[in-house]
Amino acid sequence: MRQKMSDMVHKIQDEICEKLIEIDGVKYRQDEWTRQEGGGGRSRVFSGGKVFEKAGVNVSVVHGTLSSEAASSMSGGRNLEGTDLDFFATGISLVLHPHNPMAPTVHANYRYFERGDGKKKGSWWFGGGADLTPSYLFDDDVKHFHEVYKNICDRHDIADYRNFKKWCDDYFFVKHRGERRGVGGIFFDDINDLSKEECFSFVKDCAKSFLVSYIPILERRKDMSYTSKQKEWQQIRRGRYVEFNLVYDRGTTFGLNTNGRIESILMSLPLTARWEYCHEVDSNSDEYKLIKVLQEPRNWLEL
Amino acid sequence: MRQKMSDMVHKIQDEICEKLIEIDGVKYRQDEWTRQEGGGGRSRVFSGGKVFEKAGVNVSVVHGTLSSEAASSMSGGRNLEGTDLDFFATGISLVLHPHNPMAPTVHANYRYFERGDGKKKGSWWFGGGADLTPSYLFDDDVKHFHEVYKNICDRHDIADYRNFKKWCDDYFFVKHRGERRGVGGIFFDDINDLSKEECFSFVKDCAKSFLVSYIPILERRKDMSYTSKQKEWQQIRRGRYVEFNLVYDRGTTFGLNTNGRIESILMSLPLTARWEYCHEVDSNSDEYKLIKVLQEPRNWLEL
Repeated sequence: MRQKMSDMVHKIQDEICEKLIEIDGVKYRQDEWTRQEGGGGRSRVFSGGKVFEKAGVNVSVVHGTLSSEAASSMSGGRNLEGTDLDFFATGISLVLHPHNPMAPTVHANYRYFERGDGKKKGSWWFGGGADLTPSYLFDDDVKHFHEVYKNICDRHDIADYRNFKKWCDDYFFVKHRGERRGVGGIFFDDINDLSKEECFSFVKDCAKSFLVSYIPILERRKDMSYTSKQKEWQQIRRGRYVEFNLVYDRGTTFGLNTNGRIESILMSLPLTARWEYCHEVDSNSDEYKLIKVLQEPRNWLEL
Repeated sequence: MRQKMSDMVHKIQDEICEKLIEIDGVKYRQDEWTRQEGGGGRSRVFSGGKVFEKAGVNVSVVHGTLSSEAASSMSGGRNLEGTDLDFFATGISLVLHPHNPMAPTVHANYRYFERGDGKKKGSWWFGGGADLTPSYLFDDDVKHFHEVYKNICDRHDIADYRNFKKWCDDYFFVKHRGERRGVGGIFFDDINDLSKEECFSFVKDCAKSFLVSYIPILERRKDMSYTSKQKEWQQIRRGRYVEFNLVYDRGTTFGLNTNGRIESILMSLPLTARWEYCHEVDSNSDEYKLIKVLQEPRNWLEL
């Protein structure tokens, strides 16, 4: 499964980047890096293109020994010793921040993890998800995005859209703001109820559907006109994105704790962000419509 | 001491803000806020002025019961129960971010804390410090800043400049970047070795000297010419400032954990910041000179 998952994420990285080159009109910068403690990765970052302010698509395959700090942040990871602290992790992680404030930021991540022997229950799992972070709300965009992932969940016994949708809303909660980072999607972790093959099949289906879930939205929004006020609002929302990633995101914390490549971990941050003291929005504005939905997530599909 | 410290920080807030109005050409926005669990504060934030991109000077007087989470993040704070979890805290906190990339950001904070009865050893302490964060290094500025605080330390038995200077370099270490946030100053916490009066006298001396430590530097730098490349470098350094504050800063964490007023806690963040993937600087540039000193702090005074 180590090889199978690693092959899959590399292939998906190629597919996604090929499409992004076509849209953005520039090639990515690629960095292949190795980690002193074992393994490495291949980071690809777009900047200066037509469509994206900054966009990164990273894969990594790392292994080594978990610090007890890193281990105890995981389920079942407390009080482990010796070879039980060995780990292997491979995955793909992407974040795309478009220039146009009408086009949402998107994030997706799929990972396979082994701790210890990788054979017995609890020593391997999959995790991942995809979520959308708009600055302006277009219901059709959000519905489309959720629909793609609901349809995938419906095809796999291991997956439950309702549960994974709620998990996403809960995970991306920015407690100190009382709002979610975005309008969600799906999120799941520690998935190991059925066989490795069945879990892999679900995760692969999700990863392969990324372009279908996002590109139609991007195509609709990337060339819309906007005002400087709307661009400023996007920058304020970028600031909230930074707050979530640096204060709460477990992937970021895990990367910082395991001596990951810092530029690859923090490629998720936007190119620019803004913090205005006591910024307020009118209660009948488009900006307010977004905030409402971040405070009270909606069910986007008729279920 | 509760009243005395609270009076002092309010008076210093007035003095500092008066001077900032004179320099910045605008008045601050003031927000008086109360905290549901007890106490409140007075936030003053400058924006849109001639000199500062964003500048905040806050005082607060808060009390209540610590969550065990918040308590255990403090020294001696584990396994406390009942009235030992009562707390009182008052202090002043300021962060000034100038427009001009040649003028450094400055931060200062002085606080008095009681946990439990506030009488026995370990149930009260003072903390604080002041530190400078330039985008471009001017040795004379840094020497002046350190000198002011060294002279204060020399006047008070409770204070030790060498120790507090090192404490500052250690506290503002951004581990994942291998660099300090800035060029330091002094930092101290849990100060309670001598009497409350002696500690207070030191802290008051520091707070009263803030303008002397910073304004001469600002005056020299605020009207210097600069290029758009230098402004961009400042924005990248602002990004690092955000990283420290959101990932490591104990004041921010304490605020988020104790349900503080979010806009006052995060007023320390710059108006705008930038994250460029794999940004690099020439090894004989002014930017590199700064990075070197953040990686290997210097002794600024002949000791």
